[in-house]
Amino acid sequence: MRAAMAAAEVGDDVYGEDPTVRALEERVADLFGKKAALFTPTGSMANLLAVRALVSPGQEVLCEAQAHIARAELGAHGAFFGVTMRTWSHPRGGVDLPAIEAMFAPDLSPFFVATKAISVECTHNFAGGRVVPLAEIESLHPLVERHDIGLHVDGARIWNAHVASGVPLADYGRACGVLTVCLSKGLGAPVGSLVLGPRRMIDEARVWRKRLGGGMRQAGVLAAAGLHALDHHVERLADDHSHARLLAEACGVDPAEVETNIVVLDVPDAAAVVAAARDAGVLVSALGERTVRLVTHLDVSRDQAEVAASVLAKALASTRPSAGGS
Amino acid sequence: MRAAMAAAEVGDDVYGEDPTVRALEERVADLFGKKAALFTPTGSMANLLAVRALVSPGQEVLCEAQAHIARAELGAHGAFFGVTMRTWSHPRGGVDLPAIEAMFAPDLSPFFVATKAISVECTHNFAGGRVVPLAEIESLHPLVERHDIGLHVDGARIWNAHVASGVPLADYGRACGVLTVCLSKGLGAPVGSLVLGPRRMIDEARVWRKRLGGGMRQAGVLAAAGLHALDHHVERLADDHSHARLLAEACGVDPAEVETNIVVLDVPDAAAVVAAARDAGVLVSALGERTVRLVTHLDVSRDQAEVAASVLAKALASTRPSAGGS
Amino acid sequence: MRAAMAAAEVGDDVYGEDPTVRALEERVADLFGKKAALFTPTGSMANLLAVRALVSPGQEVLCEAQAHIARAELGAHGAFFGVTMRTWSHPRGGVDLPAIEAMFAPDLSPFFVATKAISVECTHNFAGGRVVPLAEIESLHPLVERHDIGLHVDGARIWNAHVASGVPLADYGRACGVLTVCLSKGLGAPVGSLVLGPRRMIDEARVWRKRLGGGMRQAGVLAAAGLHALDHHVERLADDHSHARLLAEACGVDPAEVETNIVVLDVPDAAAVVAAARDAGVLVSALGERTVRLVTHLDVSRDQAEVAASVLAKALASTRPSAGGS
Amino acid sequence: MRAAMAAAEVGDDVYGEDPTVRALEERVADLFGKKAALFTPTGSMANLLAVRALVSPGQEVLCEAQAHIARAELGAHGAFFGVTMRTWSHPRGGVDLPAIEAMFAPDLSPFFVATKAISVECTHNFAGGRVVPLAEIESLHPLVERHDIGLHVDGARIWNAHVASGVPLADYGRACGVLTVCLSKGLGAPVGSLVLGPRRMIDEARVWRKRLGGGMRQAGVLAAAGLHALDHHVERLADDHSHARLLAEACGVDPAEVETNIVVLDVPDAAAVVAAARDAGVLVSALGERTVRLVTHLDVSRDQAEVAASVLAKALASTRPSAGGS
Repeated sequence: MRAAMAAAEVGDDVYGEDPTVRALEERVADLFGKKAALFTPTGSMANLLAVRALVSPGQEVLCEAQAHIARAELGAHGAFFGVTMRTWSHPRGGVDLPAIEAMFAPDLSPFFVATKAISVECTHNFAGGRVVPLAEIESLHPLVERHDIGLHVDGARIWNAHVASGVPLADYGRACGVLTVCLSKGLGAPVGSLVLGPRRMIDEARVWRKRLGGGMRQAGVLAAAGLHALDHHVERLADDHSHARLLAEACGVDPAEVETNIVVLDVPDAAAVVAAARDAGVLVSALGERTVRLVTHLDVSRDQAEVAASVLAKALASTRPSAGGS
Repeated sequence: MRAAMAAAEVGDDVYGEDPTVRALEERVADLFGKKAALFTPTGSMANLLAVRALVSPGQEVLCEAQAHIARAELGAHGAFFGVTMRTWSHPRGGVDLPAIEAMFAPDLSPFFVATKAISVECTHNFAGGRVVPLAEIESLHPLVERHDIGLHVDGARIWNAHVASGVPLADYGRACGVLTVCLSKGLGAPVGSLVLGPRRMIDEARVWRKRLGGGMRQAGVLAAAGLHALDHHVERLADDHSHARLLAEACGVDPAEVETNIVVLDVPDAAAVVAAARDAGVLVSALGERTVRLVTHLDVSRDQAEVAASVLAKALASTRPSAGGS
Repeated sequence: MRAAMAAAEVGDDVYGEDPTVRALEERVADLFGKKAALFTPTGSMANLLAVRALVSPGQEVLCEAQAHIARAELGAHGAFFGVTMRTWSHPRGGVDLPAIEAMFAPDLSPFFVATKAISVECTHNFAGGRVVPLAEIESLHPLVERHDIGLHVDGARIWNAHVASGVPLADYGRACGVLTVCLSKGLGAPVGSLVLGPRRMIDEARVWRKRLGGGMRQAGVLAAAGLHALDHHVERLADDHSHARLLAEACGVDPAEVETNIVVLDVPDAAAVVAAARDAGVLVSALGERTVRLVTHLDVSRDQAEVAASVLAKALASTRPSAGGS
Repeated sequence: MRAAMAAAEVGDDVYGEDPTVRALEERVADLFGKKAALFTPTGSMANLLAVRALVSPGQEVLCEAQAHIARAELGAHGAFFGVTMRTWSHPRGGVDLPAIEAMFAPDLSPFFVATKAISVECTHNFAGGRVVPLAEIESLHPLVERHDIGLHVDGARIWNAHVASGVPLADYGRACGVLTVCLSKGLGAPVGSLVLGPRRMIDEARVWRKRLGGGMRQAGVLAAAGLHALDHHVERLADDHSHARLLAEACGVDPAEVETNIVVLDVPDAAAVVAAARDAGVLVSALGERTVRLVTHLDVSRDQAEVAASVLAKALASTRPSAGGS
């Protein structure tokens, strides 16, 4: 990948003149059957541009209460674009159609906030990398079409969903109007995401990307890494999924519940587990006071996964309150 | 009331020099046991200033999915103050403590949106004027105190809650850090609401009120109406509640479910009912495609309520699809 | 005026159903030859809605550096509507056409901020109530028309300009696309301003007024005061202007420079003058460390103006550093 | 440079764990004598974070009317951070101290916008890469210190100023509280800028960078290019300056007026010159209808500069209206 980056042909992408960025944008748009794509420095910026395209200030997007756009983007959708959010809760991050229909607000009058988009995250990060079934996403179509609103899929980890479920990438593209995908995370590129959608929307997103300070100049060095990742790192995600199941088993989680490369552990003291694992050379993160997240990726080999499994099992044991107490 | 308005002593309230406004602010603050209060042109502005005081751009407030701040303020909290919102759903607009605890996000790290306030509406407008029990509001105290976040009560109709439940106004004030109340609606003043809370918060809210364009000059003419309403129109809200039960009965709704001055009807065609009632001289509003809201108030006498009940019963009958079909 | 307010017929203006507000809106729109008008609680909100209608987030308005929208609205245009501002400086608050043409930014490409409106304040408050000549405003027309941008006149004190210059109100209306006027200040209504412009713009402004929390319910009591002021308080502004010249003379300012009801004094210590005058019962305000503003209005009679002149002359003398020093 | 990028050691910079990014941040902070620095994807984002750190929503920054933050960042300061701007005009982009003192607004009362920062761009892009003299920047110190406000230098091209003027980098750092610098543009790195200032400010900026979607993961590949540029590309900027003077001479501009790597041409038809040059293989850009900007950089050799000079001379000649007319 580094060799590909070093050899990248570049230009000024603010003017749309970087050939490697353009090649990446066209390739990813094609993969998902979308008209156009825009390269961004992060998945958060891709999501920001996606929601902004669908929802104006004072209008709302509906999403699951633990979605990345609701929880992990620091409230940027409200802070910068004046977007309002209402949320449904689903134990596994999925689509609760009756709840969504009940809270959906049609554009009835100028006195109420109108729902202008629904956003679904797949795989769902905080629900443990769960693959939201394509049929769940598609179940929103009648509502979306009846009211002519937007449907966004936050597909930062759509590659994992594709490999785990066998659903073709183009099917995910067809299932939504606007899609965001990420080249770092599982795919292993150092930097970069894309937002995909209709040509006109992407043209506008290009201007707003610059306004956000995301209009990088010779971004081709990063895009080259993305192209390399698409060639070499998609199918191997199956290994990450296998490693994750291995970790799950060691930590007492049913491997059948681990669909992709994330394992979520419920523990009595998340900070203690994170610290014990770190001392033994394994980096994991706390999602809450009692929740630890394990993630496998490109740079974790089978052997390393086995070592990590052993380390984590010990960390869990050492941080568990003794049954007998004192 | 108009005589009181005509006799009002005024000054420039932008400089805090309107004696009638100051008298109103002090009186309402005292009623609820709060340190300070600020007069605003609308309940929406009072709520905007209340939430802004508790939640900074990029942080979040939790509220019920049908709350006035979520549904009926045109997304202003996000549009102007960059506030993010997540919502729980409760069939009667109340506090679902387990759901709130599950979605609550402590201020763990700079990577996640932190919950900085919880907002409860009482009475809850879109839940049919339901009095959210004081105990439900108070059930949030352990969570709020443990994490040192704000608790806001949108008490636009707190007067109705007080009259219907017998809970003293000061108890509602004690139950929350920031309270908003409204003098129009049930109390019958033409214009005016207040936001109540700690002195320093109210001083800041005064500046932001001016920034929003809500710093009226000789507002004493409006405050005089509010003072009059406090003297004369609180206890009589019991009449409005009685009239609402009368309407409910005529419309086939169990009067025991009508706690205050609002009746919500589920109908096959809300627009048709609104139109039929309007033609017969009764104004009601559609909250959704199948939801009609009836509101009683100061200017509806017992006799008028009886006429309205009869009109509405006919409107419902005439717009109901015939059982036999054709 | 209070009698008119007490007798006002009202309705719910959020639904556009308050007959007195509608009458006021139509009358003011007609006075200036505009299609539509919207009543607002303050001149600041009227200006906010006016600029928002012309300039989208990320676009800019040009105005004089001491304009009310730049100095006295607490940055609301940027804070709430994301509007950017660039400014020219004019010693008397007027139109510096060469400077404006030099800084004007046409909508050339998506890389630069585009100028979308020019705003002129008349009379110009911080330039001492100067009447910006109609010809200066009209000198902007070729630029405005060539680039199809907006021209806003902040006419909070347009009534004073009209009385002082003899220019018909309709001429001011014709000179700009969007106009804001104020009924408090010189006209003496307790509360209320209006924004005037094309019908569609005003319809949108009505929604944004509600979003700002400015959608008052039975605002007719305020509108009645405005109608009364239009009937009785416009021509008498000439008295305020005469009183202002009287104050100017007493304070050593050339009365010929006082065009309307404002006198600006350059003094060594503004706070001291404000305090000395206040102690003697005359309220004036400091605009800066060395600037004091005197304003005459409806409630200041000729006799009171003479007393104030004497008080101010003494305040100036007592706060002037003695020439000899020590 | 590409070799350095390919060999870069990386980590997750969102967690502050990328060693190459940290090395770059520390090195640049040291160069300018600042406590801390933050790497950003663009100079626009660095400026956004710099101004946000100094100016809250509803407060203002003063800058020259053609400054990059005013003209070329798409109004982001207002759109995302609610910052208000007033501007002075200077023919060469410099500091007009009397104008600034006249427009400066102390934080007198909660009724006026308060000036919270002054921003100076050096070199000034749209003023033709002019080096704003250090003494001009320092002339602001008494005002800035008296009122305890911020002083920002937009030093995207500070390296050019340093090389052209001989002023040490640390002197520029000392002259301001917050500084932004860019590694692309003249220094030739593909992507990357930094904002420099006090530790606490930079810690906060790191959170807001993530909120803007600028928190890149393995950014070390980009930082490596920046480190390489600091080692190899600073002193050679003198060549770019020499090439720019060569271009100026060919285009009839006095080379003595060209201080760094930018030449600004006043032409009758900018679009025609841009097109004619492009057809002959030379890329230049139109800044306005009658303004063309020429920029020299790392990838333009002496020979190429000579060819470009010849091409531009012909483009100017061919697009000039003939004197005789027809």
